[in-house]
Amino acid sequence: MQSNLTLLTDFYQLSMTQGYYLEQISGKTAVFDLFYRTNPYDGGYCVCAGIAQAVEYLENLHFSDSDIEYLRSLKKFDSDYLNVIRNLRFTGDVYAIPEGSVMFATEPVIRVKAPLIEAQLIETALLNIINHQSLIATKAARVCFAAEDIPVLEFGLRRAQGPDAGVYGARAAIIGGCYATSNVLAGKMFDALVAGTHGHSWILAHETEYEAFLAYAKFSRDSLTLLVDTYNVQKSGVPNAIRVFSKLRADGTLPVKYGIRLDSGDLSYLSKKSREQLDSAGFKDALITASGDLDEYLIATLKQQGAKIDIYGVGTNLITSRDCTSLGGVYKLSAIEENGIFAPKLKISENPDKITVPGVKKITRLYDKQTGMMKADLITLDDEQINPDNDLTIFDPKATWRKMTLRAGSYIARELLEPVILGGRTVQKQKSLAELRDYCTREKDTLWDEYKRFINPHIMPVDLSLKLYNLKEKMVSV
Amino acid sequence: MQSNLTLLTDFYQLSMTQGYYLEQISGKTAVFDLFYRTNPYDGGYCVCAGIAQAVEYLENLHFSDSDIEYLRSLKKFDSDYLNVIRNLRFTGDVYAIPEGSVMFATEPVIRVKAPLIEAQLIETALLNIINHQSLIATKAARVCFAAEDIPVLEFGLRRAQGPDAGVYGARAAIIGGCYATSNVLAGKMFDALVAGTHGHSWILAHETEYEAFLAYAKFSRDSLTLLVDTYNVQKSGVPNAIRVFSKLRADGTLPVKYGIRLDSGDLSYLSKKSREQLDSAGFKDALITASGDLDEYLIATLKQQGAKIDIYGVGTNLITSRDCTSLGGVYKLSAIEENGIFAPKLKISENPDKITVPGVKKITRLYDKQTGMMKADLITLDDEQINPDNDLTIFDPKATWRKMTLRAGSYIARELLEPVILGGRTVQKQKSLAELRDYCTREKDTLWDEYKRFINPHIMPVDLSLKLYNLKEKMVSV
Repeated sequence: MQSNLTLLTDFYQLSMTQGYYLEQISGKTAVFDLFYRTNPYDGGYCVCAGIAQAVEYLENLHFSDSDIEYLRSLKKFDSDYLNVIRNLRFTGDVYAIPEGSVMFATEPVIRVKAPLIEAQLIETALLNIINHQSLIATKAARVCFAAEDIPVLEFGLRRAQGPDAGVYGARAAIIGGCYATSNVLAGKMFDALVAGTHGHSWILAHETEYEAFLAYAKFSRDSLTLLVDTYNVQKSGVPNAIRVFSKLRADGTLPVKYGIRLDSGDLSYLSKKSREQLDSAGFKDALITASGDLDEYLIATLKQQGAKIDIYGVGTNLITSRDCTSLGGVYKLSAIEENGIFAPKLKISENPDKITVPGVKKITRLYDKQTGMMKADLITLDDEQINPDNDLTIFDPKATWRKMTLRAGSYIARELLEPVILGGRTVQKQKSLAELRDYCTREKDTLWDEYKRFINPHIMPVDLSLKLYNLKEKMVSV
Repeated sequence: MQSNLTLLTDFYQLSMTQGYYLEQISGKTAVFDLFYRTNPYDGGYCVCAGIAQAVEYLENLHFSDSDIEYLRSLKKFDSDYLNVIRNLRFTGDVYAIPEGSVMFATEPVIRVKAPLIEAQLIETALLNIINHQSLIATKAARVCFAAEDIPVLEFGLRRAQGPDAGVYGARAAIIGGCYATSNVLAGKMFDALVAGTHGHSWILAHETEYEAFLAYAKFSRDSLTLLVDTYNVQKSGVPNAIRVFSKLRADGTLPVKYGIRLDSGDLSYLSKKSREQLDSAGFKDALITASGDLDEYLIATLKQQGAKIDIYGVGTNLITSRDCTSLGGVYKLSAIEENGIFAPKLKISENPDKITVPGVKKITRLYDKQTGMMKADLITLDDEQINPDNDLTIFDPKATWRKMTLRAGSYIARELLEPVILGGRTVQKQKSLAELRDYCTREKDTLWDEYKRFINPHIMPVDLSLKLYNLKEKMVSV
């Protein structure tokens, strides 16, 4: 990521903010919501990620001298406007869903309240960051759900869509549930666990596979994984690995953690055959790592076939989110200051799903008190309060006859949006990646499996309070 | 992109290079080829992109003190090895297919000759950069092929997989044929043409659509595009745009370049209806820009339906290459110095398509002299020469009976790989993005449309010289 992403924006944000400035409305306070309209993968939820980078971006927001000179060279901008943005910093308030949370379509992931010029300028970069990381964190959560208790290693860097996609994708993958990444830069930047073994070139750089294995073993004292598919897994790779393991065991130098990696071929068949070969040679605790175009669907069928795999390595399909390449988040104006009060705003569309929800809003998450499991999310206006000592009836805003009543005392209400920046100043301390991953695990645990399954998952209710519903209806019917 | 990408690598590259170092073979000269195995999108070709960033990465290759301290903290590396890599710089030779060239599966896109330790360390970053940019350049070439003479604007930044994916994706999209990007940072970094209009929030920030249009027009003197789908295209957006255009024409301030943008709905129907409305109001030269989940297939059907669109804006599907998210490039050892001479190397696989081609190789591109159109690529060993004054018979290495003879004097032979780094020093001056785009246009013009079509394209022969074929066969049969 560039250290200064202020120019990481669509040209039209600059045109519009210049327009606001010249119209003398750029100082009006505006409220924007960042949200997405549909859960990706026909899935039941998303995992929120990228908030820390969004905050970092806002903290560093400023046009450098060379940025201003570049903009001037385009001959599209008024010099008064350029002088104004030269001194621009982010001074607004930002509320966000905590990183690692499960979240759902239509909810405000980030709510920005700032002078119109600032709130508008940051749209593109915020979307870029949140769309990307939340997508990958969600994909990782799905892959890990399929893998159940088997650890998943992210190692897609070489196929990621550029360096940042590799680095921030690795971060998001770990938030979503991967235990480690092969990406060393991500390891350094985020204190992520890094892992990996050797490649085919190690084998090719030696005279024989056996010599290559033996040499590699010499330098891998605390853990040893041998890649066995350079020539032939069953006839060459596994037998050579067994020769090396036997030699090390005889020498008393076999690491506690040792095993083989399969990177091609029929992983179900080869893992079972390799397991048999290893077991009958007396290496029952050798671990089998498998990789090769894996995703949540393939992992589920490998498990169903009883494949003997102890660690999954997942690359391209996770780091690029192959079956859904974008979260599709949008950023819409929901209120603007008019004579000192906030006037709600909404975008109408011929497509009812594209009509936005007006006003300054928040999310209250409702849990069953007994099980701790999620029941619903309720979007309300910011000044509404849910009191769990009262009964609460909520309804589906698209089919208002679909109602659910939560009885007083039977539910817990949690406000989901947290302040991350107030008056331009960061108000949260950064969480470590391990904390985010643990938090995400707890979050995922509040969802019944029915919401996590891949085919026709349950859809979590994301309802509007009556007050908000009525406001929207009134504005749509005008 | 981070300024120093040296740690942008898989952990196993460090394990392997440490192994090479401890075995005292890290100084052996090795040759690696970067290539991909299958053209993406079931297409007939790729466009090469990312070479400039790959070169930049190699020029800057060095571990910073904090990188070394980080690696030391992992307690997996020998301190002698860390001292060696602390002073490591790239000292090798790199040959590459020129950026913007059309290229084909199995060809060495980049050939690296360097001490084993260097050549191995750079694998992951080179793959990341080339896989990403070549993929997006190829997608852009396809989109522009569908659009024919209609210009295509890249504006996918908000949906790109992180900041780099937006910035370098925009660069690649322009190499592949887009005329401009909305991405201002890409504009600054690569001197790319930036373009764009306003968003829905501009409309919502004003009392009425008409007022919003009028205000926007005031600040858009040299070109004016009004987004007409905030409320209702036919009943509100286009009539309001026409009111504004009429007023500007009456005032004598209508820019030469003006028009509307459709961003949702049925683009074929709405563009035709809008065209009628604009034409009958006397605005026959108003341009219609259309956007909304476009890709090469949708653009082709819009053209077939006679949609009245003058500019295409393409976002998500281009910047994330939705239907194929990774080029799948690999980096394989092809030769290594043994006692002063290069011993060819190859990886065998149970899958014949995964067997690599051994030896130090180059590509000769063969053109028909009369038409200037490409006939085939021939991969040979580096010391072979093609003399177009002689007949040349080439054959398909997978079906050796499929032969083609090019008659003496009827063809042109061009060596495709160019030196970009020699002895660690860059030997090419950077080309401008405009030069790369123009070069790519000329390259695409050497392909008959049969190679560019989307369904069952002709497959360009990529043959092996007899000498190379024999070498590979001999090594496989051992």
